[in-house]
Amino acid sequence: MAVNGSHLLNVYRHRLIFQGHNAFKKLTYSPCKTLASFEHGHSLISGKGEGSLKKTPSPYHPHLGSPVLSSVRTSSTVALTSSRLTSLTRGPYSVVNDEDIQFFNKVLEGRVITDKDELESHNTDWLKTVKGNSQVLLRPKTTEEVSAIVKYCHDRYLAVVPQGGNTGLVGGSVPVFDEVIISTQLMNNIISINPVSGALICQAGCILETLDSHVQEHGLTMPLDLGAKGSCHIGGNVATNAGGIRLLRYGSLHGTVLGLEAVLPDGEIMDCLTPLRKDNTGYDLKQLFIGSEGTLGIITKVSILCPQKPNAVCVALLGCESFQKVLDIFVACKSHLGEIMSAFEFMDSQTMQLVKENLSMTSPLVDYPFYTLVECSGSNGTHDEEKLTKMLQAVMDDGAALDGTVATDSTKIYNIWALRESCASALMKDGYNYKYDVSLPLEHFYTLAEVMRERVKNHAIRTVAYGHVGDGNLHLNFTTAEYCPATMALIEPFIYDWVAKHRGSISAEHGLGFKKRQFIYHSKTPSAVALMATIKKAVDPRGIMNPYKVLPEVTNGENES
Amino acid sequence: MAVNGSHLLNVYRHRLIFQGHNAFKKLTYSPCKTLASFEHGHSLISGKGEGSLKKTPSPYHPHLGSPVLSSVRTSSTVALTSSRLTSLTRGPYSVVNDEDIQFFNKVLEGRVITDKDELESHNTDWLKTVKGNSQVLLRPKTTEEVSAIVKYCHDRYLAVVPQGGNTGLVGGSVPVFDEVIISTQLMNNIISINPVSGALICQAGCILETLDSHVQEHGLTMPLDLGAKGSCHIGGNVATNAGGIRLLRYGSLHGTVLGLEAVLPDGEIMDCLTPLRKDNTGYDLKQLFIGSEGTLGIITKVSILCPQKPNAVCVALLGCESFQKVLDIFVACKSHLGEIMSAFEFMDSQTMQLVKENLSMTSPLVDYPFYTLVECSGSNGTHDEEKLTKMLQAVMDDGAALDGTVATDSTKIYNIWALRESCASALMKDGYNYKYDVSLPLEHFYTLAEVMRERVKNHAIRTVAYGHVGDGNLHLNFTTAEYCPATMALIEPFIYDWVAKHRGSISAEHGLGFKKRQFIYHSKTPSAVALMATIKKAVDPRGIMNPYKVLPEVTNGENES
Repeated sequence: MAVNGSHLLNVYRHRLIFQGHNAFKKLTYSPCKTLASFEHGHSLISGKGEGSLKKTPSPYHPHLGSPVLSSVRTSSTVALTSSRLTSLTRGPYSVVNDEDIQFFNKVLEGRVITDKDELESHNTDWLKTVKGNSQVLLRPKTTEEVSAIVKYCHDRYLAVVPQGGNTGLVGGSVPVFDEVIISTQLMNNIISINPVSGALICQAGCILETLDSHVQEHGLTMPLDLGAKGSCHIGGNVATNAGGIRLLRYGSLHGTVLGLEAVLPDGEIMDCLTPLRKDNTGYDLKQLFIGSEGTLGIITKVSILCPQKPNAVCVALLGCESFQKVLDIFVACKSHLGEIMSAFEFMDSQTMQLVKENLSMTSPLVDYPFYTLVECSGSNGTHDEEKLTKMLQAVMDDGAALDGTVATDSTKIYNIWALRESCASALMKDGYNYKYDVSLPLEHFYTLAEVMRERVKNHAIRTVAYGHVGDGNLHLNFTTAEYCPATMALIEPFIYDWVAKHRGSISAEHGLGFKKRQFIYHSKTPSAVALMATIKKAVDPRGIMNPYKVLPEVTNGENES
Repeated sequence: MAVNGSHLLNVYRHRLIFQGHNAFKKLTYSPCKTLASFEHGHSLISGKGEGSLKKTPSPYHPHLGSPVLSSVRTSSTVALTSSRLTSLTRGPYSVVNDEDIQFFNKVLEGRVITDKDELESHNTDWLKTVKGNSQVLLRPKTTEEVSAIVKYCHDRYLAVVPQGGNTGLVGGSVPVFDEVIISTQLMNNIISINPVSGALICQAGCILETLDSHVQEHGLTMPLDLGAKGSCHIGGNVATNAGGIRLLRYGSLHGTVLGLEAVLPDGEIMDCLTPLRKDNTGYDLKQLFIGSEGTLGIITKVSILCPQKPNAVCVALLGCESFQKVLDIFVACKSHLGEIMSAFEFMDSQTMQLVKENLSMTSPLVDYPFYTLVECSGSNGTHDEEKLTKMLQAVMDDGAALDGTVATDSTKIYNIWALRESCASALMKDGYNYKYDVSLPLEHFYTLAEVMRERVKNHAIRTVAYGHVGDGNLHLNFTTAEYCPATMALIEPFIYDWVAKHRGSISAEHGLGFKKRQFIYHSKTPSAVALMATIKKAVDPRGIMNPYKVLPEVTNGENES
């Protein structure tokens, strides 16, 4: 009864380019040479194929302070948030003085940064849209050090902002005024890994990609993967409930984080760092910290469940004529691929145009209105290929897919993923980015892009849509050379109203941070927001922990983007 | 390169009994006739095989008020908790009066129960170990009705206890004194199901098994499954963060619950009932309610992600000579079965003896010290069978498994699962049950059973161990004819100390409820418990919501079991 996978693939070879079997003639993509020598270049997709992928330099990493990006916007050209939004009021916190610096130096010998130049990049967000004016950056190495400095700040009534890789997109990890920055940069020890249970325990400052490489040596994989993996810290991932491309397969961090340790706003250490998969003793406190964006405490250690590393990965890129066809392919994938589907992404034609124009990348397919990227990963490559073949047969037969290319070897897989994962960096080359990350019921999913494109018209260089269809998560982006209030006025609050009207979420995975907190009511009811405020007040009565973030400022309706 | 599954299965057929292919000669198990005519008989394992399973009567359902069980312990023979634990102090709540009943009757015409006989079973827990003395049971149908009565109770300072299917094992869903019982029994509407996204929205009183049947019609399955599925309510499942046999595959409710609606202790309705998979707008409040055992509010509606229903299910029961071999098989399963492993359970020989003796069940295998039950479910039966065959080849070759039987058709699968899932009911036939549900690192997993068996010796009728090895979750049980303080003194607090010393959790999935709350410090640090108390105080300042549960009574160290 078994269907011969190779046979079926041959049937479709006249239309599909099966990269693992054929020479990949159509694909001329090569890493962008001008960026190839980046000092910290990491692959964004190691972990998707074989280990050798890890050494491939990434041309499109969004967090490298690239010279190309800096030609458009630099930290020093970004206006201070506090001077740009004059109606914003600084909280009644103390101001850091010499005595404070002296104390910090006593606890953190040589790891207290007060140099203006060095502070610059820690004061500015990655998108270069918001900028704080902190005078001091602290780099603790241990939980006890974090506890000591937070307790001091609490008693001195100094506001603090926790910072991981500073790769967030909503201004949540930089100061708004002069908050003390507490960085997890030096808290990067891997503490233990249990290959049988899959539990990894590490400090919060470990870089996601480093962890992925580490657990792969034990036959495991990290349950999350995202574009910023070469820079982002696991503590920041957890604090922001990061999503990414593996969520479809392994679920959210609320399910995969087993335990954590955090320093509370009064300096108390909350140790819930269990490696156990099940523990129903009292409230699951770790959940409060997952996604609270550093407003309830500083995550110092994480225990996370790593799934078995797949033995085989294959990826298909398909072209189709409408978004409805993208959905048809999704339904076919759920049915045919079942448990092996590990990603289902889409890009519209404008997105493909973007990566071609801004990063000189080449698509293996000719132009189509829409592209879907389907990834399978499982324990048996032959089985997976057979399932994928059946799915492809179905979607080519009924016209859902017009063309496609399949990759089973790591370089080809890398090249296909590069198209999808380079979007964020490609956008930055246009200048100012207006980024929207929404969840929508699938029936309204792409309509928002059409509505907004029609509305914004030539007030943006481009309007591009891509995202995680499998999770109902649309990334909608607009670009202009510089920040343009007229464009912004066309976008907001209209876009949030539209999302709310269609029962979506105005922030699927980026969080609210500083920039989107005023829009919380578009996705949450007043009673829910009131309960959040009750919890914030109970856990952080002095309000020193990452102020001006997540929860809306009651008296200030000003747009903070 | 593909291995022929049937060929390999033939190779092992001299040792394995492959039930889907061969006559099942060794297996003489048949449903226990004395119990077959139960009025509410449900299958415990519908959803694991074909739909026809649903009609199979369950001989071992633990929640049917069975005549067999009632011959051992009835509700009326259970002593009132308040008279048994005299040092326990009733909170300063008001006492229900005629005016209150009048108000309740106004809101819930005909759904206010004050009849003593009818109240009896709602005052007593399923294990018949604790009993409250509530004078009134309320049965709302809508969220608004729940809100109205909770608001009234809040203002009148009346304590309440939310109750679902009353299938909990730690006395969390029955009153301790005279709390008003609010039952979700009549809140059983299925609101919507989206077959593409898999999101199910329903009221909290829907029975888990009913939901599973319903979503199966849409090609989906519930992400959780447990012995009490024929009685337990989804609201109770969420409130207690129920685990069960599918957790290994689909993860915990913290990951699969998409949203919920709850009535807060002041009657306010908190609507976080999103069907979206991703929503990072503010604190993820639903997480607070998952596992808080009704102490922070009453869950009224649930939105939950249902995975694709597997096309094929197969089950293997293997006999082995030591617990180490059970672990060896687990490692082999992770490697060979990967994404299709959906359960990995174990029973020791004493457990097999228990179900044979107390429920007249028959094992398809001869006696072994240990048994493992492995379930695979996936989208392609041929592929799954091939993977299972390879795994069996490996574990038979290296001697990890000494014998085994494999089932691919639904009746045979049912029969194998019946052995494992009947344990709880079989135990009840001995008399009083001392139930322990702990998580332990796998290296210490079975040692606890050995240590306790040696310690308790003939002070118990039997000491049996079974559970979810894949989740590190051990169910350890002792039985005596009646409650025996001497036996209890041998078990507690020794068992909790042992678990704490080995970094386990004293309650993996049952929760703390009333009976285990005093032992919270064995699994949680003082700072974590203090933070829980802070949250409880903030959300329920009057303390009316399920008092005497989860959080320890500060001044009372008395054992509450």
